[in-house]
Amino acid sequence: MTDLPPPPLDEDVRGRFETAFYGLMAYRELTAFERLSSDARFSPTLRDRDALGRLAVAEFQHYELLVERLTALGVDPQEAMRPFTAAIDAVHERTRPGDWHESLMKAYVFDAVSGDFYRAGAEALDGDVREAVETVQTSEDQTAWVRERLREAIAEDPPLASRLALWGRRLVGEALTQARRIGDEHGFWRHLLGSPAGAERDAQVTALMARLVERHSRRMGELGLTA
Amino acid sequence: MTDLPPPPLDEDVRGRFETAFYGLMAYRELTAFERLSSDARFSPTLRDRDALGRLAVAEFQHYELLVERLTALGVDPQEAMRPFTAAIDAVHERTRPGDWHESLMKAYVFDAVSGDFYRAGAEALDGDVREAVETVQTSEDQTAWVRERLREAIAEDPPLASRLALWGRRLVGEALTQARRIGDEHGFWRHLLGSPAGAERDAQVTALMARLVERHSRRMGELGLTA
Repeated sequence: MTDLPPPPLDEDVRGRFETAFYGLMAYRELTAFERLSSDARFSPTLRDRDALGRLAVAEFQHYELLVERLTALGVDPQEAMRPFTAAIDAVHERTRPGDWHESLMKAYVFDAVSGDFYRAGAEALDGDVREAVETVQTSEDQTAWVRERLREAIAEDPPLASRLALWGRRLVGEALTQARRIGDEHGFWRHLLGSPAGAERDAQVTALMARLVERHSRRMGELGLTA
Repeated sequence: MTDLPPPPLDEDVRGRFETAFYGLMAYRELTAFERLSSDARFSPTLRDRDALGRLAVAEFQHYELLVERLTALGVDPQEAMRPFTAAIDAVHERTRPGDWHESLMKAYVFDAVSGDFYRAGAEALDGDVREAVETVQTSEDQTAWVRERLREAIAEDPPLASRLALWGRRLVGEALTQARRIGDEHGFWRHLLGSPAGAERDAQVTALMARLVERHSRRMGELGLTA
């Protein structure tokens, strides 16, 4: 027998969840930056290139912030991101925008759905994480700019509406499929939802997905599109 | 007859040169950002992606600074950039990197040659412009990182040396051809070199190009490559 206390297992598990969560967010923000900035140069005007460049740089700044958090936790950011690279790369490969409008729509949908997912995750964690999640949200100003720009494009070219509506459904489908898979594979649900495995947790995961879809539908409605 | 003084023609011409110069730099920095961030995702490691992302974001920050300068002068940044888009896009189309190392080499060569060209331009302008030019230089730290990363890659894969040496010659050739053309078409030499048109100016332009090549050769030498 020893007098040493038992290892703080729960803290340890919680720490691993926090690391994984930051790693997931960091890699998503990094890839959002790379993809968006690649697409920026196909913008119809220099003004649009400017705006997309600024959006992309904001994603990189989110990434940098998450890397700093990981480093402060004594974690190698590359190691923390690695478990998520294949899943996130796969989403990007399956959602390659066909043109500039689809690229803008992808930023609109993915940034918002990811943001909702991050927020759900942060509820299960402490104030530090919640603060980080708030900081990596796309700003209201930038979201408003994207929404207005999409509305304007649809007004100028009405057939674009049905194409973007279809594209939006594809995007949200891919995002939720991967979110669910990542949650399953990395044991996120236990932390996010607090319930043990089984039918109850499955129902809760489904309810979370339904909330994400509902919020997505509202945002599509704000573009005048049916989700 | 009127008592009004003659219009300040020289100031006006100088102001147009300043605007053009900022416009040229702004568009180059914007495109450097777009191209480099597009290439970043082909980096061999997450660490390289991180570093290239940071380099790209620094180029965007230079672009933003130049846009602010133009705006402060009462000039529409888009209008100021427009005269240079075709020439700079053509350089990029003619120098599409075949892989990640060529992309890194392109950043190494173009950032430095452009920096030297900007500095030559700033000498003909006042302190404000010189200060702006200093601010948009790639930082010593970043240049050092690129140089070390290229050296490391060449050490790991010696045949890369001859490919990158060839690529470096191609890059500097394209950069100088376009610099000369832009200088001719936009009447830069008169301001940069102060001499009237004719054989004397031609000789001075050639001497400026020779200085740019010499500095480029020194940088290639620092990689262990022959320019």
